[in-house]
Amino acid sequence: MVIKVLYPNNIKKEFKHNISHKNRGMDLENLINDTNKYYIEKDIALIYKKPTPIGIVDVSYENKHKIIKKGYFASPSTLDYNGIYKGKYLDFEAKETKNKTSFPLRNIHHHQIEHIRGVIRHKGISFLIIKMNGLIYLLEGTDFLNYIDSKNRASIEYNYIKEKGHLIKEAFIPALDYLKTVDKIYFKERGKSG
Amino acid sequence: MVIKVLYPNNIKKEFKHNISHKNRGMDLENLINDTNKYYIEKDIALIYKKPTPIGIVDVSYENKHKIIKKGYFASPSTLDYNGIYKGKYLDFEAKETKNKTSFPLRNIHHHQIEHIRGVIRHKGISFLIIKMNGLIYLLEGTDFLNYIDSKNRASIEYNYIKEKGHLIKEAFIPALDYLKTVDKIYFKERGKSG
Repeated sequence: MVIKVLYPNNIKKEFKHNISHKNRGMDLENLINDTNKYYIEKDIALIYKKPTPIGIVDVSYENKHKIIKKGYFASPSTLDYNGIYKGKYLDFEAKETKNKTSFPLRNIHHHQIEHIRGVIRHKGISFLIIKMNGLIYLLEGTDFLNYIDSKNRASIEYNYIKEKGHLIKEAFIPALDYLKTVDKIYFKERGKSG
Repeated sequence: MVIKVLYPNNIKKEFKHNISHKNRGMDLENLINDTNKYYIEKDIALIYKKPTPIGIVDVSYENKHKIIKKGYFASPSTLDYNGIYKGKYLDFEAKETKNKTSFPLRNIHHHQIEHIRGVIRHKGISFLIIKMNGLIYLLEGTDFLNYIDSKNRASIEYNYIKEKGHLIKEAFIPALDYLKTVDKIYFKERGKSG
């Protein structure tokens, strides 16, 4: 059975009623993108995914439109998402892994680690959202850096993520209310950042 | 005569000695990009240009690398640059025009105007950097919106930019120290934003 749902901005979305909202097949990126749209519509925060950086090799014109004929994917030096929430600068990365015992670090570049360090130094909020073993965690930038700096490893043990990470629950609207978790961590005491 | 200059991070740049640093042919975007690199190296601010959003139509693989075979340029809903400075969220757009009497608004989309409004509402700093008649101005987001909201025009008169805008001087290193101007406007009184 297919039900049509009218979202606040009248974007129609179809989904199957018999699939629970907890596992309707959205990957982590889509959960966050949908949630960010909701935050913007409700004027809660302005957070956007940065476009993937592209190197353009060749372009041509079709019907007066510039078309890319050849390009490649460049590696980003910042994180995927940034924006503003309650007057604070927010900057984070979202990653999922099928690995059950450890979160591999090969997908987080050296530049990105230094970027997290920089954001915290400049009094912004930076963290990772990690999906692993069917659960979604917010790992604070400082906890991530503490691990990286103390252990010279290619991955983060799941036990560390379970211990230090903050569980973010999936829901209906918004799909992944990670700002609720951000509130608990960063807006509990005035002026706390990192 | 060609002189090699070693920049702080050892990026070599060649330029002709007989061209003054004030007009060595850099366009506004390059002036800002070079300046942002300098700010990052000196740990003054973390400000990046967002990649141009691309719609990807077709990809293929060459030597195990994913290559874009067809793509198009999508229109951005946010501004070109954003980042963090002195703990504040910064978000701005840079535009130049050859028009001498007015700055055409056709290159600033409705979404972008609403984005400027949103950033200010959320206590971030948003502005335009406009190059016109050989001069570079910082036009505060609030002054930009006041004009847009009071006059239903397709352009901003140069007189308004001259009157409300803040001149940013080109220099050597960094090429365009716009944060000096930001300091004067936004960090004069504690907590002022917009």
